[in-house]
Amino acid sequence: MKIKVNQNDLNKSINIVQKAVSSRTPLPILSGILIEAKDNMLILTATDLELGIKTYSPCEVEEEGSIVVHAKLIGDFVRKLPSNSYVYIETTENNNMEIKCLNSEINILGNSSEEYPNDTFNNQGNSFMIKPDKLRKLIKYTYFATAQDNIKPIFTGCLIEIKNNICTFVALDGYRMAVKKDKIDYDGEVSVIVPSKTLVEILRIIEEDTDNLEVIVSESHVSFKLDNTIIISNLLEGKFIDYEGIIKDNYVTVASVETSDIRDSIERASLLAKDDKNNLVILDIKENNMQINSASEFGNVEENVPIDKNGEDIKIGFNSKYLLDFLKVIESERVSLNLIGKNNPCFMKEINEEKEGQEENDFIYMVLPVRIS
Amino acid sequence: MKIKVNQNDLNKSINIVQKAVSSRTPLPILSGILIEAKDNMLILTATDLELGIKTYSPCEVEEEGSIVVHAKLIGDFVRKLPSNSYVYIETTENNNMEIKCLNSEINILGNSSEEYPNDTFNNQGNSFMIKPDKLRKLIKYTYFATAQDNIKPIFTGCLIEIKNNICTFVALDGYRMAVKKDKIDYDGEVSVIVPSKTLVEILRIIEEDTDNLEVIVSESHVSFKLDNTIIISNLLEGKFIDYEGIIKDNYVTVASVETSDIRDSIERASLLAKDDKNNLVILDIKENNMQINSASEFGNVEENVPIDKNGEDIKIGFNSKYLLDFLKVIESERVSLNLIGKNNPCFMKEINEEKEGQEENDFIYMVLPVRIS
Repeated sequence: MKIKVNQNDLNKSINIVQKAVSSRTPLPILSGILIEAKDNMLILTATDLELGIKTYSPCEVEEEGSIVVHAKLIGDFVRKLPSNSYVYIETTENNNMEIKCLNSEINILGNSSEEYPNDTFNNQGNSFMIKPDKLRKLIKYTYFATAQDNIKPIFTGCLIEIKNNICTFVALDGYRMAVKKDKIDYDGEVSVIVPSKTLVEILRIIEEDTDNLEVIVSESHVSFKLDNTIIISNLLEGKFIDYEGIIKDNYVTVASVETSDIRDSIERASLLAKDDKNNLVILDIKENNMQINSASEFGNVEENVPIDKNGEDIKIGFNSKYLLDFLKVIESERVSLNLIGKNNPCFMKEINEEKEGQEENDFIYMVLPVRIS
Repeated sequence: MKIKVNQNDLNKSINIVQKAVSSRTPLPILSGILIEAKDNMLILTATDLELGIKTYSPCEVEEEGSIVVHAKLIGDFVRKLPSNSYVYIETTENNNMEIKCLNSEINILGNSSEEYPNDTFNNQGNSFMIKPDKLRKLIKYTYFATAQDNIKPIFTGCLIEIKNNICTFVALDGYRMAVKKDKIDYDGEVSVIVPSKTLVEILRIIEEDTDNLEVIVSESHVSFKLDNTIIISNLLEGKFIDYEGIIKDNYVTVASVETSDIRDSIERASLLAKDDKNNLVILDIKENNMQINSASEFGNVEENVPIDKNGEDIKIGFNSKYLLDFLKVIESERVSLNLIGKNNPCFMKEINEEKEGQEENDFIYMVLPVRIS
């Protein structure tokens, strides 16, 4: 391989693939990045065998070739080179890579590209297009509700479901559930569970100025094709829960409130809730006021937030973390709490001011209450 | 106590004193902040018995009084209150503190102020004035060279010496030494060792717009009086090393170089030096070039930096960390390396371009070489 590439392009490409590099792996070659030069393209690939990222950038190829080099070493070196300078890369037959830039030169002992697992990127299956901004919002509104532990592996991923031209993302962890929908221009049906780690990486890589992106779903994998980058991930196996059966609408109390008011108040109340294993805050909804209380051996907090209410007064306890996760993600200025009783789940929705205060029905967040005496 | 105070003032004051709060202390009361209200001032105090900080801010005092409350709890709560709002604080006889702000209210179980050690702030001794910006630079140019372990406790502090109207700060850790001087308008003599932790806190608290500040030195303590804040610290006991005897000037090689060139090159070379316990980089000074090399099992780096040189060619090894600590602190665009031989210390100085490339003599940084074969 013998190439000339701009430092900015190379640095950006390394940053994109680096997140798929295994930090702890039984296969040492996976701590490297596969670097390929052909057809005047520089192709960088990293995979931990569950998540793979491949990215293309322009470069001048004098001699094609490929090599695997330690990801952190090349990443740190290239990042510290002068911005926008030209970087000259050359490899030798014994897998040595030489990088030259102005007065700097590094020689890195690499590995043969033949040992690198590079076949998973050829994913064949159903394919549909989605606007990057739609995908970004579908992910952002749901992935935080996935389970963090591996006790129920399928709950560490999001269900992606398409039917009747509606794409639905669902995440849940046994205590709360987030369901986000959007229209999609695809007539087929899809139902797969994608690891949340994959979705986080997609959020990171999607840029506002990316055009349409293509999603390809096979039996075992899902891939996301952006302008210059492909992300491929294994799917989680198992049957997802019947999420539609969980959603109720027999509310006895509906309260709407300014998002920033309730978020800030719960943040302050959660300071004293931290000592409780449930992070317990109590919401006391009475007439046009919501009182939020928490207490510990160090003291207690009382917050009051003005609300618009329909239905019965109610006093109900929640894990403050679950409420805050939702309140920090949503973009609407007002939010509604839809309650069925103090021992039943609460359903939270965004309120669209432009539609005269109507609730948005494309997103619903359910959280189970904490029983209070 | 019954007071009204602006959230910004209160938040700022808590942030200033919070760094002196003990995180791990055998005395539970030291995890709190002493809050006093008198003469229309709010006085906050924290101490870990080695470092103490007291700060004054204006407030409306309706009823004087004092209390000790948990630092982190009040700090987190006040930080999350609406910016610039008014905060109403009231204490009860049984050491309960009530904080009200708009629709928020917290009750914190506090402790009696009588148990709080508040006597150390009355420091009597020699006193001199110093411009905050001078003090800032004296600290910044030296404290990074103090020892991080406690094997030789006095080396965890900076020597502050005043004689003949010159104030000198000295820090060393057995491998390198930083000596910074500045003129001072004080005729007396001072020689004390101040813990680096104290100096770091002063750096944090000094603001550009503070006027003159007063330093008071007694047998056992040093205090720094800023406009609204007093910092007091114990002194380290022991005899400091004769630093002047370490400084040599029988140089056989003097090389000057752009600070950013040598800093960036050593940063890149240090990527491969990290595997060596000495972080070894080798400087090969030959004619008008400095080659910087490092190597590990993963590869090697070669950097070339143009220099102006007087005297002999030389090849010398250093711990890259010690060079970078210095190169990241200095503000001059060029720097000189003054060498006596490959087994002798290197003396580094700033170069003042405005004075036709003369070396600055108010700062000298010495670093011992690493022996190379």
